Amino acid sequence: WTSFSMQTVTLIPGDGIGPEISTAVMKIFEAANAPIRWEERNVTAIKGPGGRWMIPPDAKESMDRSKIGLKGPLKTPIAAGHPSMNLLLRKTFDLYANVRPCVSIEGYQTPYTDVNLVTIRENTEGEYSGIEHVIVDGVVQSIKLITEEASRRIAEYAFEYARNNQRASVTAVHKANIMRMSDGLFLRKCREVAETYKDIKFTEMYLDTVCLNMVQDPTQFDVLVMPNLYGDILSDLCAGLIGGLGVTPSGNIGANGVAIFESVHGTAPDIAGMDLANPTALLLSAVMMLRHMGLHDHGNKIQTACFDTIREKKVLTKDLGGNSKCSEFTAEICRRVQDLD
Amino acid sequence: WTSFSMQTVTLIPGDGIGPEISTAVMKIFEAANAPIRWEERNVTAIKGPGGRWMIPPDAKESMDRSKIGLKGPLKTPIAAGHPSMNLLLRKTFDLYANVRPCVSIEGYQTPYTDVNLVTIRENTEGEYSGIEHVIVDGVVQSIKLITEEASRRIAEYAFEYARNNQRASVTAVHKANIMRMSDGLFLRKCREVAETYKDIKFTEMYLDTVCLNMVQDPTQFDVLVMPNLYGDILSDLCAGLIGGLGVTPSGNIGANGVAIFESVHGTAPDIAGMDLANPTALLLSAVMMLRHMGLHDHGNKIQTACFDTIREKKVLTKDLGGNSKCSEFTAEICRRVQDLD
Ligand SMILES: CC(C)[C@H](C(=O)O)[C@@H](O)C(=O)O
Ligand SMILES: CC(C)[C@H](C(=O)O)[C@@H](O)C(=O)O
Repeated sequence: WTSFSMQTVTLIPGDGIGPEISTAVMKIFEAANAPIRWEERNVTAIKGPGGRWMIPPDAKESMDRSKIGLKGPLKTPIAAGHPSMNLLLRKTFDLYANVRPCVSIEGYQTPYTDVNLVTIRENTEGEYSGIEHVIVDGVVQSIKLITEEASRRIAEYAFEYARNNQRASVTAVHKANIMRMSDGLFLRKCREVAETYKDIKFTEMYLDTVCLNMVQDPTQFDVLVMPNLYGDILSDLCAGLIGGLGVTPSGNIGANGVAIFESVHGTAPDIAGMDLANPTALLLSAVMMLRHMGLHDHGNKIQTACFDTIREKKVLTKDLGGNSKCSEFTAEICRRVQDLD
Repeated sequence: WTSFSMQTVTLIPGDGIGPEISTAVMKIFEAANAPIRWEERNVTAIKGPGGRWMIPPDAKESMDRSKIGLKGPLKTPIAAGHPSMNLLLRKTFDLYANVRPCVSIEGYQTPYTDVNLVTIRENTEGEYSGIEHVIVDGVVQSIKLITEEASRRIAEYAFEYARNNQRASVTAVHKANIMRMSDGLFLRKCREVAETYKDIKFTEMYLDTVCLNMVQDPTQFDVLVMPNLYGDILSDLCAGLIGGLGVTPSGNIGANGVAIFESVHGTAPDIAGMDLANPTALLLSAVMMLRHMGLHDHGNKIQTACFDTIREKKVLTKDLGGNSKCSEFTAEICRRVQDLD
């Protein structure tokens, strides 16, 4: 008997190590009694009417119903003209905010300690517009599209996030000294929104300066908000500071609660099926998901069990510096989750 | 009596701490008997015929004659429509390659050791085209312009640089998975040029992946070549790894030997005129300049004296962790330069 009603989550296990790490997450969720019912779906893109690439109808239908997805790594399609599945998913469900908390993990050593920041990336436009032309032979232009609406929406998301997560400041990252109109518009919207969140400190900084300061002292940063490409860059840079994509969670958030949480590492085909993969990034993404769904206690319990396991250093996968299998690491987290009850 | 004929260099001392650190460099050059005659010029932009901003004719004329410039920091103009002086200089002299060697400095501690890489940035086009439009109210586009010619030119520069500086590999940094046509063109040119430099290893990597790998292990990188904006970002990131802009040299290279070397830090108005500034970045830029002019022995001698001073830790400016004045740090380097004779 539980006071929580079961909620459905669309699970996209993905390719390569995706199925193994998805299984690990499901096991840990079971140990934690998380009230989640998984609905597994495959999302290899198909060609729809008019030749447009789209995700399979049963995956779309599941997401439309559940609103929440958890996704493992997807291999990059090789067919010509085949879109990146990641981009197609963001587009299909208008997941306009990419959120990546980067927090130092105790016991997992990197050159940095006490990193505790969040990158919030505009996920729908900018340099990712896909609009490009050949002007004349040998001269190509790509269009970076910045709109008032998307800029305001992401700025509002960043400030709401800061407020709801007890964070003190938001920094807008830009190159408005160079792209005066486009980044200028983005920055103006950030300033406007900042006006309505007097409890959150607002600063603005050039992207190049952020990168320089970031590698010198990341502890000075809190919440960072930025256009699409800058977010692509900074989120990976920041993941590097705390140990890489194997331990960094990520969430793509849309309107009305719709969201897909995902590990952003690769499919690691070389170790796929060998019980060697590290499920941490997907697990921590699933923890973000639980919090997004209001299931904070379950999320906290799983996160504690995961971090305790890493801090203890007794049962770790190879990439984390240990000798254990994925299943052993998973079992250790399960054991700790149950002990926390 | 010396076997070197004097060569003229246009010196742009710049604003804020610019004059002090320029004086420091001139003193050290004198101690090293560097065969350089300085021609000092001011470069505050003026409005030319048709209202176009241009650098003052006497500065332009000096550079046209000397071909070589050394430049301190310039303050950002505040007049509306006033261009960045840095951009105007790059444009005026078609300085198409920005070169930044980032090498760990012994004795100056950062989280990284053994960094030894060079970023080579396309300096004339890309996101810096300056072409932007409002499409409709609230919708802005910026144009990223990539040409075959500029891409080939910078790729050739990178491979020539690698060969002439005994470097083993060149990595092209791109986002051709997103900007398939523009970054695709850039990448294609890099691949073509790579074909003609079989002695240099060629690799290609996504910008986000480079950033992540860079903060995890910068020693894996050698020469990196990339479009304009990516170079802006990566060159600052890499400067951060070795201690920041206060110790990182930079050169802007054009055709036919034309070049301007510069420190890329700010004007530091808070300490200007107080004999507290650190001249290292400008000095190391001047060392790059000497090598560019074929004066390797003078360059090596000055660099050794500078690095020895930093390694010894006895006479350092405040930002380097010491208590000495700019003039004392300069005198120490002069003393060592003379001892090396
Ligand atoms: C896979 C790729 C299209 C994607 C991007 O460039 O956005 C990736 O780098 C990411 O950050 O999710
Ligand atoms: C000052 C600014 C215009 C410049 C740039 O963005 O290129 C600076 O950041 C640089 O790297 O030289």
